[in-house]
Amino acid sequence: MRHFLWLIDYTKEEIKEIIDLGFEIKKETKLGIFKPYMKYKQLAMIFEKSSTRTRVSFEVGINQLGGNGIFLSSRDIQLGRGEPLKDTARVISRMVDMVMIRTFGQDRLEEFAKYSKVPVINGLTDLCHPVQLLADLMTMIEFGKFDFENPSNTTVAYVGDGNNMANSWAILASKLGFNLRIATPKGYEIDENIKQKALEFAKKSGAKLEFLYDPKAAVKDADVVTTDTWVSMGQEEEKEKRIKDFRGFEVDSELMKLAKSDAIFLHCLPAYRGYEVSEEVFESHADEIFQEAENRLHAQKGLMVWLNK
Amino acid sequence: MRHFLWLIDYTKEEIKEIIDLGFEIKKETKLGIFKPYMKYKQLAMIFEKSSTRTRVSFEVGINQLGGNGIFLSSRDIQLGRGEPLKDTARVISRMVDMVMIRTFGQDRLEEFAKYSKVPVINGLTDLCHPVQLLADLMTMIEFGKFDFENPSNTTVAYVGDGNNMANSWAILASKLGFNLRIATPKGYEIDENIKQKALEFAKKSGAKLEFLYDPKAAVKDADVVTTDTWVSMGQEEEKEKRIKDFRGFEVDSELMKLAKSDAIFLHCLPAYRGYEVSEEVFESHADEIFQEAENRLHAQKGLMVWLNK
Amino acid sequence: MRHFLWLIDYTKEEIKEIIDLGFEIKKETKLGIFKPYMKYKQLAMIFEKSSTRTRVSFEVGINQLGGNGIFLSSRDIQLGRGEPLKDTARVISRMVDMVMIRTFGQDRLEEFAKYSKVPVINGLTDLCHPVQLLADLMTMIEFGKFDFENPSNTTVAYVGDGNNMANSWAILASKLGFNLRIATPKGYEIDENIKQKALEFAKKSGAKLEFLYDPKAAVKDADVVTTDTWVSMGQEEEKEKRIKDFRGFEVDSELMKLAKSDAIFLHCLPAYRGYEVSEEVFESHADEIFQEAENRLHAQKGLMVWLNK
Repeated sequence: MRHFLWLIDYTKEEIKEIIDLGFEIKKETKLGIFKPYMKYKQLAMIFEKSSTRTRVSFEVGINQLGGNGIFLSSRDIQLGRGEPLKDTARVISRMVDMVMIRTFGQDRLEEFAKYSKVPVINGLTDLCHPVQLLADLMTMIEFGKFDFENPSNTTVAYVGDGNNMANSWAILASKLGFNLRIATPKGYEIDENIKQKALEFAKKSGAKLEFLYDPKAAVKDADVVTTDTWVSMGQEEEKEKRIKDFRGFEVDSELMKLAKSDAIFLHCLPAYRGYEVSEEVFESHADEIFQEAENRLHAQKGLMVWLNK
Repeated sequence: MRHFLWLIDYTKEEIKEIIDLGFEIKKETKLGIFKPYMKYKQLAMIFEKSSTRTRVSFEVGINQLGGNGIFLSSRDIQLGRGEPLKDTARVISRMVDMVMIRTFGQDRLEEFAKYSKVPVINGLTDLCHPVQLLADLMTMIEFGKFDFENPSNTTVAYVGDGNNMANSWAILASKLGFNLRIATPKGYEIDENIKQKALEFAKKSGAKLEFLYDPKAAVKDADVVTTDTWVSMGQEEEKEKRIKDFRGFEVDSELMKLAKSDAIFLHCLPAYRGYEVSEEVFESHADEIFQEAENRLHAQKGLMVWLNK
Repeated sequence: MRHFLWLIDYTKEEIKEIIDLGFEIKKETKLGIFKPYMKYKQLAMIFEKSSTRTRVSFEVGINQLGGNGIFLSSRDIQLGRGEPLKDTARVISRMVDMVMIRTFGQDRLEEFAKYSKVPVINGLTDLCHPVQLLADLMTMIEFGKFDFENPSNTTVAYVGDGNNMANSWAILASKLGFNLRIATPKGYEIDENIKQKALEFAKKSGAKLEFLYDPKAAVKDADVVTTDTWVSMGQEEEKEKRIKDFRGFEVDSELMKLAKSDAIFLHCLPAYRGYEVSEEVFESHADEIFQEAENRLHAQKGLMVWLNK
């Protein structure tokens, strides 16, 4: 039995298997073919933070696979009453076939997984957002921006906060071997532990990882430009300070011009226009962004079927 | 692709098609026959206001049709975090097959529909409640109070607040050609724009529409008497003023006596005894009222199957 | 049509039928066999208190039986807006095939059942928790601690608060004929009405019921030791007083040593270590406790299929 807690536990080959399954099931779905990959399987979906994409994509996904999703917000279950996580894990994992958790610390996720009898999927933590990266990878491939055979042909620029998305990009690049430039303001760099691990993996994969403070240098000739909100859930109090600190990091048309002329722009949403991305860049790249959002559904179906094997 | 935002967009023939489908599927359901009309179809149900009937009827309905309903309260999704509605619409409508929304302004519903790739259903707005009217129409037909061939035989009296229910009755009558008398206190008339549209449709359908301030005149010899709460969701602060202004508008036994002796009484619920309706009238017409509530399920199944064609 | 409001309405034979069905379906589930016992059946699940086990077990259960569960928290439905319970009951029970309710007073449950057209299941009230007892009974049987043929061979010790769990144990013992010793602090005895009913049933079944104030006397040579939280939902304000009053009632290793050497320990969860149970006792009996939790799923599937016949 495998969990899906972060990409660090996964090899390039395994990531490819998951993505390939995602593409196969996406194709079937578009043809109206629904194979009972997970007939009668029950997915518990535990949310300690609110969600649109994660919620809808997992619930639609498990249903289209023939199973059923159970939405558990921390308001509705005993987690909110202070039951130890290890007890909740032992109870729920004896009743369902798979668990998806969106929570705060990675340690909470790991604690749950440790006591779970069934596979546990990270649906976002403060440290990582690996299912989003599966969707991003699918989208890059669909737009001709990534090829497992020639990963070093791809350069991704991440501009903005060194948060769970930036951490996840660092791991993905280092595992697959593409080039990644992360530009953050000083004081907003990615997690140091993640960085060290990524640099180590990069030695093997050949990924070129650069950690910069200059958005322009990052975006220069990139194939893919991406960013994320400057104010993640739970950081609302620091909002004003953050907006000041991130001045100059907005992905606007001027910045996008520095990328390759056919570069795509990705955003995991929700997007805040006028902050991390301009309305103009957002709307002119809406095709990529909403295909990326839809790919959450397909990538996660691939993941669930893979974990269920 | 069609949306179902208000009855103004629908012809008499289309309304009849939907209702007929509703009757057909109701008959099958009562016989224990569940045809997979919407096998594997996913219905997102977005609620910005709380609900019992709408929630249960849509969720049961889509499941009995072979599909699945995803309950999204604004607490649980990013709508609550200020994501633009057009982004939410673009994301969700790429993952599901149909969307039902209960929200405040009709403009929010229209904005969502504008950006949606799949049919959008109005599950109640401050302006209209068209799915309720489909259920009311089914109930009138079942109790022999309406016939598509002879609409002018029917007189409906709506007594009370000129709210979304009153607006919807005006549109339905004007589309189908039955007689409608709406009695409201001064200052609580129906929406002026709706009224003008209804009067225009009435010219074609032959509907006789009367907008009165006297409940007795409205109910006189009516076939169907109906009302709605005086204090809709969001109006709790005006409660005291409203109760005063609506004095004399309670549908009690004395008022009901003015209607035809076999008149039915409808109420979309929740009902507040001693305000818009007396306990006596409510309980002596409970058969109609709860059949009407049940018809939400059947009418909406007809609607979903119709939109899905 | 039968409701499942408390065990007082059920005979020993009926309880055995339900449990036997639960075992049969559990066996099938473990073999990956899912018979469509309740194909297309809709279960409304109304929660006026939060829940983990009840929520997940009922929702997984009805889905594995081929049906669908609709989770209704009092936040999301009109119950919260003051609609009379009898109206909600009449509406919901015309749309679904079965209703599960977790609420406060037993009277609310009875009111709902009175107006419901479909079977109503008690998912916990302040007075009783009968579905938990079905799971506990299954677990006792699986661990060889109970046999319908020789009930008097079993002695159960309940130590702690004379709450809904204690009430339910009293009824179960008196119906089935096993021996039960309930030890509570003074002032925390079980419900007097329940006690009288239990004593009456015990005359017929031969159950030996003892109501004590000494935990040690209760646990002496018991086959099964069980307890429950000292501070149930809604009692948080009395917490400090209760903790003081329950001093000496913690089930710790010293107390467990007085029971039979192979005694099992049950807990309906959530468990508060250092209060009603010690960490050591809890973890050394985790196998029983989490099998008991899992049996909620199987027992309730048996119950639903039984009620649906």
